Amino acid sequence: KMAEISQMIDSEVFLAFATYATIVILKMMFMAPLTGYFRMTRKAFANPEDVSLRSKIEDEKKKMLRTDPDVERVRRCHQNDLENIVPFVVIGLLYALTGPDLYSAVLHFRVFVGSRFFHTIAYLTPLPQPSRGLSWMVGMGVTFSMAYRVLSTGLYL
Amino acid sequence: KMAEISQMIDSEVFLAFATYATIVILKMMFMAPLTGYFRMTRKAFANPEDVSLRSKIEDEKKKMLRTDPDVERVRRCHQNDLENIVPFVVIGLLYALTGPDLYSAVLHFRVFVGSRFFHTIAYLTPLPQPSRGLSWMVGMGVTFSMAYRVLSTGLYL
Amino acid sequence: KMAEISQMIDSEVFLAFATYATIVILKMMFMAPLTGYFRMTRKAFANPEDVSLRSKIEDEKKKMLRTDPDVERVRRCHQNDLENIVPFVVIGLLYALTGPDLYSAVLHFRVFVGSRFFHTIAYLTPLPQPSRGLSWMVGMGVTFSMAYRVLSTGLYL
Repeated sequence: KMAEISQMIDSEVFLAFATYATIVILKMMFMAPLTGYFRMTRKAFANPEDVSLRSKIEDEKKKMLRTDPDVERVRRCHQNDLENIVPFVVIGLLYALTGPDLYSAVLHFRVFVGSRFFHTIAYLTPLPQPSRGLSWMVGMGVTFSMAYRVLSTGLYL
Repeated sequence: KMAEISQMIDSEVFLAFATYATIVILKMMFMAPLTGYFRMTRKAFANPEDVSLRSKIEDEKKKMLRTDPDVERVRRCHQNDLENIVPFVVIGLLYALTGPDLYSAVLHFRVFVGSRFFHTIAYLTPLPQPSRGLSWMVGMGVTFSMAYRVLSTGLYL
Repeated sequence: KMAEISQMIDSEVFLAFATYATIVILKMMFMAPLTGYFRMTRKAFANPEDVSLRSKIEDEKKKMLRTDPDVERVRRCHQNDLENIVPFVVIGLLYALTGPDLYSAVLHFRVFVGSRFFHTIAYLTPLPQPSRGLSWMVGMGVTFSMAYRVLSTGLYL
């Protein structure tokens, strides 16, 4: 069972989790300034107060309140990160507390983080499908594998 | 106060939290392949590279780059999961560390997870309102109740 | 290194983290009823079953299935919360386990939570830019600072 969890939290597995979780969350956060960059270069904003900084002419301001395919692409990529990285972090934390051996744990973390970096590249380039789809599936597979261990180690319903 | 938390983490309450958190996160993750299923059956995609896999004819490809009410419904359901399940997981973890008695803890977890499964059914069927609204409120109520215990057990401002 | 984490979890730093994380998550959850409030006063809904509660006349129902600038503004604010508060909570938890001194920890938590409350006010009023942009940057800066400490305390790749 999940006993001795309080020792687990001092383990190398937990350190590895903290490292990879932080890296992949930083990667996700990077999508926000990237959206800002595309909004500025494509001149495509969502709020009237954002365009007021950039022009005083009413007509120019209205034109900048629009959606742009590149901005929307970065936003979909950001959303996909939220939908996938949040489950990884939650289930990964619980998984790290089940006391897996260091080798499998680090393998899980590395494959997930690698798959999400590749997913971002595949989404933003964009690479032809199914490269983005496959990288998404790899990430999902890692999280499912960790969830399986959490549930089989200490199911308490 | 929140002392002896490191013992709490070995408790049955924590095991129960790990079980229910994993189940409800898996439920949330399931919304992604469901979106994919609706995108494929409704032929409604967001990215040009996604339709290229499905047709070589330029006209057919353009027609598939569209929004579809069923796809948007699943996406709203997924978004509502993110907005509600993430707070549950964060506050539930802190709540589990305050050392609640096992009976109330498991009751909180079960009601929340049940409310979110019902919410998904109510959203996707769709059931007439206010069924979806009520299930959403039940979930919010559980999270508020746990937040109240976290803040009243160990407020440190 | 990150040793003796299991003691850290009983510390005042952890209590402070639990308090501020709960408060800022509650703030984020508040965006949902606020969206509901704007949907009802602006009569702008996303689902056919939601308008059926409010009118029986087919024409009136159709008119209420629309987007409204105020509703969309609250939703963007909610989305920005998700994108920023989730990273804060994850990295803040790991940061609290690195054993920072109480003064810097509480400073980080307070500045972040303050910046997010200000961000919401700046978004919803709306205040002229760059007030919203600056409050967003302050929050990002706090999370980066905590991430830096997590990675420099116990990097395990």
